[in-house]
Order: sequence, then C-alpha cells, then structure tokens
Amino acid sequence: MGKKISMAVIRRLPRYYRYLADLLRVDIKRISSKELSERMGITASQIRQDLNCFGGFGQQGYGYNVETLYKEIGKILGVERRFTTIIIGAGNMGNALANYENFRKRGFDLIGIFDINPNRVGQYINGIEILHMDKLEDFMKKNVVDIAILTVPSHIISEVAEKVADLGVKGIWNFSPQDLKLSHNVVIENVHLSDGLAVLGYRIKDLEQELA
Amino acid sequence: MGKKISMAVIRRLPRYYRYLADLLRVDIKRISSKELSERMGITASQIRQDLNCFGGFGQQGYGYNVETLYKEIGKILGVERRFTTIIIGAGNMGNALANYENFRKRGFDLIGIFDINPNRVGQYINGIEILHMDKLEDFMKKNVVDIAILTVPSHIISEVAEKVADLGVKGIWNFSPQDLKLSHNVVIENVHLSDGLAVLGYRIKDLEQELA
Repeated sequence: MGKKISMAVIRRLPRYYRYLADLLRVDIKRISSKELSERMGITASQIRQDLNCFGGFGQQGYGYNVETLYKEIGKILGVERRFTTIIIGAGNMGNALANYENFRKRGFDLIGIFDINPNRVGQYINGIEILHMDKLEDFMKKNVVDIAILTVPSHIISEVAEKVADLGVKGIWNFSPQDLKLSHNVVIENVHLSDGLAVLGYRIKDLEQELA
Repeated sequence: MGKKISMAVIRRLPRYYRYLADLLRVDIKRISSKELSERMGITASQIRQDLNCFGGFGQQGYGYNVETLYKEIGKILGVERRFTTIIIGAGNMGNALANYENFRKRGFDLIGIFDINPNRVGQYINGIEILHMDKLEDFMKKNVVDIAILTVPSHIISEVAEKVADLGVKGIWNFSPQDLKLSHNVVIENVHLSDGLAVLGYRIKDLEQELA
C-alpha cells in the first residue's frame, strides 16, 4: 500500500465493511458504485473516491468484487488482529458496553471491569468480576491491556485516563462528554453521542422544510 | 442560505460547534483555520472548505469570528429548536441514555420511557416512570413525540421501529447493530458503536507501525 489513507476515509471504512459483509451474506458477488451508493446513502462519486484510495478494485462495467473489497478493507482495518480491552466504570454505560456482543465479533476481547463503588465491586458482568480500581495496577502488570474503555464521570475522566496511560494502554475509548488530551503516545477516540442526536435533529428540521 | 450543505459537512458541524463553545468559554474571540486545525485534528484546508459552505465567515489575516461562527453553526443545526424524545428499551443502554444530561442541554427533552419487562415497568429513571409498551399508542396520542430512541434487542428492532413510525415520530435513533430501513417519511440515524472501536483499533495498529 505505502500511501497514507486520510482519517476521513478510515472513519468510513467500518461502514463499508459492514455493508460488504451484508452483501456477502446474501451471496452478492459484485456491485457497482451506484448500487452501493443507493444502499449506503453515500454518493457514488464519494464511494469511488474512497475506494480508489487503496487501489483500483472497481472495474468499468463490472463494478467491485465484493469479496476482494471486503477482505482488503478488513486488512486495512486490521480485523484479523485481536485487542484486549478493559472497562472502567461499571455503571449503566459500562454494563451496556460489557454486554455488547458485537465487540468480540469485531476482535475486541473484554478481560477486566473496574469500579470504585462497593455495591458494584465483586459483582459479575458477562462472567467477568468487577474489580476495585485499587487492583488496576496489579491487573495491568499481569495482563496486556490494549484498550481502556472509560465510562466514568466527567470530573474524574482526566485522572483515570492519565492512570491507564501510565500503566501502558495503547488506546482509550472515552465516553465522557469531555474530550481527552494526553501527552502520552496513546490513541484516543472520544465518543460524542449527542453529536449523533444533533445530526438527527438537523435532518428532521430539514425534512420538515422540504415537506412544508 | 439556499444552497444545500452536504451531509458529510453536516456530520462535522456538531464537532465544530462543541469546539467553538469551548473557545467562547475561555473568551477567545477569533481563531484562524490553522489554530482550529491544531485543536480539532482536522486539516486547515478541510476546515476552510467546510466553513466556506455556509458563507465566508473567515477573513484573510483575521481568521474566524468565534461568536459569529458559533451562532451561525447553531442556526444551521437548529439548536434553538427543542425536540421531545422517548426511549424504548429501559435496559442498560436505555438507562445510560436517560441519564445523559447533555441531551437536555442540546435541546432534547426526554418525556417517556417504555419497556415490556415487568421488573422495569413502574420503576423511575430520572423522575420518569417506565411505562409498558401497551401504553405507547395512548401516550403518543396525548403527546407530540419527535424522536424515538430505540435500545431494544435486534430481533424486535424492525417491529418497534415500524410501530413508532406508524404512530408519527419524525426521527428514530437506532442503537441496535442492525441498520433500519423504513418506507415511512422518518429520519433514521443508526448508531454503530463498534465502528468507533474499529477506528481505534486501526489507529493503534498504525501508531505501532510508526513506532516500530
């Protein structure tokens, strides 16, 4: 490959990957950018531009070979690689994520859950015991933890993030509304659920204006 | 405005909006695309291109007026408008979302929560009683519901979505891993949490290769 793919394209790849998996499941072997466009709600020119970034898999008059494209995107995303994850914060969001079976399918293995609330510590989620935060350091000495999923309150998010970064995680998935910045060499993905809701609001307003 | 802004740009607006709010909070009055680029991790040319979509608010050698830009993006997103929402599915994810205080700040008012589980029906989340799904139709006759947030299992998602669409919601925020398609004139935003995790995995792999 060599050429660096922009993050904007990378962020769309999981979506392509899901759609291609759906096509494979119903035994569709090739697809044009136009058909893919209709299914995905992305313009055909955007699709061609995105998919051209990693070599010309589309052929004029034939379209894309679904399996080749699926495998290639999978390779770029690194789906064959498995990551170990821990969740810090066993509240509702932590619980919801711990029970999200899709993560394992996608290569993410949950190996630990941590909290400080005595009502939660000692309980089990999906067969994993919730440990007290006191045990985190010890746990991380004994286990390689690639990713920490942080579902703790905003006011302690920086402190917890610094701690897991010091202890050697490679990535942080931050569910607090506050964006994280760390000086460490740690990859951070900040989740902003309300951004999705804002887009939904925009689209409703837009549809109402169209229909008016 | 007149000109239609592309959905790709719209999807980035909530992020600009958050960053601009942060700048206002610390009393920064103007900012160049370069500075904004460094803060947000988006290229300066992307920022100029995005912000040019809705009129030339940037001035050469001056940058953007933060407050003007903030207000303008707010207007496009429709932040002054309030939306009523209900949550269907009072499991962990439903609970987490019901407790997400940011939603109200962003203009989304939760007015009802529904479930079928007898252990949940009658309980309260954030002062709102969980009602049985049997009551949904009646509730929606008495209340205008703009948005249904669906946090139900995948195998019933289509059925529940059809139902709320029939009852007149304008938008659906779908948390099941299965993409929804409806024939109704209803706006759907499908949330795919594992896409974010896949991007995190990619970025870790990428960083490892850089450091290797």
